[in-house]
Amino acid sequence: MKIDIGNALASEASPGVSREALDRLDERVARAHERIERGRRDDEFGYAALNLPETTDPDEITETVAPVNDAAYVLVVGIGGSALGAATIAEALGDSRILTLDNVDPDHVSEVLSLLPLSETAVTVVSRSGTTAETLANFLVVREAFTEAGVDWTERVVTITGDSGPLRELADRHDLPALAVPEGVPGRFSALSSVGLAPAAIRGHDIGAILDGGKRAADCSPSLFETPAYAYGAVAYALDTRGAAINAMMPYAESLESFAEWFAQLWSESLGKDGLGQLPTRALGATDQHSQLQRYRAGPRNTLVTLVRPRERPDLRVPETDHDDLAYLGDTGLGELLDAEFAATEASLAEAGRPSIRIELDRVDEAGIGELLYTMEAACVLAGELYGIETFTQPAVEWGKRAARGLIGEGNDESESVAEKTRLVVD
Amino acid sequence: MKIDIGNALASEASPGVSREALDRLDERVARAHERIERGRRDDEFGYAALNLPETTDPDEITETVAPVNDAAYVLVVGIGGSALGAATIAEALGDSRILTLDNVDPDHVSEVLSLLPLSETAVTVVSRSGTTAETLANFLVVREAFTEAGVDWTERVVTITGDSGPLRELADRHDLPALAVPEGVPGRFSALSSVGLAPAAIRGHDIGAILDGGKRAADCSPSLFETPAYAYGAVAYALDTRGAAINAMMPYAESLESFAEWFAQLWSESLGKDGLGQLPTRALGATDQHSQLQRYRAGPRNTLVTLVRPRERPDLRVPETDHDDLAYLGDTGLGELLDAEFAATEASLAEAGRPSIRIELDRVDEAGIGELLYTMEAACVLAGELYGIETFTQPAVEWGKRAARGLIGEGNDESESVAEKTRLVVD
Repeated sequence: MKIDIGNALASEASPGVSREALDRLDERVARAHERIERGRRDDEFGYAALNLPETTDPDEITETVAPVNDAAYVLVVGIGGSALGAATIAEALGDSRILTLDNVDPDHVSEVLSLLPLSETAVTVVSRSGTTAETLANFLVVREAFTEAGVDWTERVVTITGDSGPLRELADRHDLPALAVPEGVPGRFSALSSVGLAPAAIRGHDIGAILDGGKRAADCSPSLFETPAYAYGAVAYALDTRGAAINAMMPYAESLESFAEWFAQLWSESLGKDGLGQLPTRALGATDQHSQLQRYRAGPRNTLVTLVRPRERPDLRVPETDHDDLAYLGDTGLGELLDAEFAATEASLAEAGRPSIRIELDRVDEAGIGELLYTMEAACVLAGELYGIETFTQPAVEWGKRAARGLIGEGNDESESVAEKTRLVVD
Repeated sequence: MKIDIGNALASEASPGVSREALDRLDERVARAHERIERGRRDDEFGYAALNLPETTDPDEITETVAPVNDAAYVLVVGIGGSALGAATIAEALGDSRILTLDNVDPDHVSEVLSLLPLSETAVTVVSRSGTTAETLANFLVVREAFTEAGVDWTERVVTITGDSGPLRELADRHDLPALAVPEGVPGRFSALSSVGLAPAAIRGHDIGAILDGGKRAADCSPSLFETPAYAYGAVAYALDTRGAAINAMMPYAESLESFAEWFAQLWSESLGKDGLGQLPTRALGATDQHSQLQRYRAGPRNTLVTLVRPRERPDLRVPETDHDDLAYLGDTGLGELLDAEFAATEASLAEAGRPSIRIELDRVDEAGIGELLYTMEAACVLAGELYGIETFTQPAVEWGKRAARGLIGEGNDESESVAEKTRLVVD
């Protein structure tokens, strides 16, 4: 993993951070590193996430899911951090047979259930509390679909949940394979645990190699100039405080599209509090050059673009053509073209004095995605220390959860206040 | 179509716009409306897009694609505005057999081509100039895949292009069905033309009904208090100038996920210039309540959230359960739950004094998507007038296009400057 912050320096971009400011910031990084290391040593809430490459036992996961590892498909029923890690890993491994139900859209749920051969499908249902409304509603629907299809759902379901609650009780009652959500790890930091790894394990992927990738990034030294994760977290923080309120995560690989979604959750829920926090927005190279690049290059100077690419990927040759205007495409490869687009976009932003950071991984494979996920998590924890906020909580979503529950259930203070909406309707 | 701007008023949110400021802004809306109407009357560049519901002939499209309308699948080869409109319409109509190749990722292109039954697949290849690097490279690969599969590609391909260039010459040489990209309409405004409609026409959808939906929105009166499109464009502009530099487009329907991508292109390329322009970011309800809502509600006060929902949708019943903690879910519907999440999120933002706008369409169907696309286009054109920028160009992407072409071809000034990159690498 290489992180290149050259195009985020004040000598190159505005906003940008000067070398001198980085040197000063590095002293704060060293202190933050001490705090993080203490949290890791004591397995403190949140910080424990950075120990997952060591504390997660891949064999235990593989053995627990063995009863369903004949499945051709895996359906992940979860939402937010209970789904995004698994989806990100599945996509990075090129496995399109791991699907996710992470929304309660009736049309979409019906379509997914009608397309899946349920007798060949394993289900992981993921909720720490066992009461997440969207997840449990979907699970009840999925369970009924199995029964209607004549498939014994108790033979196909793995629960991933906490020590108590409805899902744990269900697992106990029906003797389902059950994995524990790791203690002290918020959902958005749980990709390198049973939560993110179980679906890949069911499908036979080498989840040990994913954890090994995480381990490659887990040995952090106390300087942003030596640790890629800290370089990223510190520079993103420094740019935010200098006006880059937006962080556009733009991988150049379709297999990292879900990674950008995962990053958006990590960054938003961890850092978006107390009136602080950079807005993460998701983009995809080269596609979004024809959508977002105009604004990144010529809009307000409030956007950091994070460009991610693998150094190696299989290529696909573009056939030769005798048309003069297209001859330059012949005998190149689609991957070569994609890499050229990457370099051109990076240079185009630099030419306009807009900040970007380059993240390079060797390949999008087991170790590559493990290393990338861990690096971004450590970057986020560092940024949280620099902001001085509570990185591991998400208090602002609780009000809405209670209101939604009240609206479909027995009512409560929050749901009553929904009715007070101010209207100014134009139709 | 209803647009509710009540939660964007200064009495409710910060940033917000006062009723008095809206009244003053409405005078500028009236003048902008005059300018827009003149542009429409004279079919001026860009403004002509707002005439598409009248000027697009659905029968001509349907007749032109008749030679391939037996296809079970349609593959759209295009990028940016040449793909997003078609993808948005396909998704809104629930048609998962219209696929898009809008990136030059070798793995992804290989996978799509391996999954498609090519003998039952029609291809629309879309590029005004006929030289867009990504599109033409993909088309050369697709054409070879047909040949290798023993399928005569000249029987399966429809071109959608300008009056000249390689694609036009190809169509002439092989007598392919050919549709014209409309004159004077930038790609991102071309959804309601052959560009957006041809794939749906091949699959037998009622594209006349989509255009009828557009017509419902096309009769604009000169006040933001009477025209939903102007209400949206004017309030988004007013909030941006008051600090809402970000516009989070958050539909509550999986079938509108691509719509949010389409909107992001429309908003970015049209308004992101001269140092101006709101950053559009894409979200999805209810999923992103567990990802982005924390920051929308508790991060910096720089974000407008646009909530979109259909008033009607088919529902899917959640089975009853005897578990006490889950009993409130029983006998509700997934759609009912999704609507409750919508209301809860809207109220949750209001309770925190964060601005939102509600957009309601009747249903996500042919007329609904036509009306929604047109409304957002008219909103964008109005916003462009209020910003005082050139809405219909995208000059900032040209540098990168030349650089990329230089990197894989004969070299040029831009590609040479790519090599000058400043590096500060941490690994």
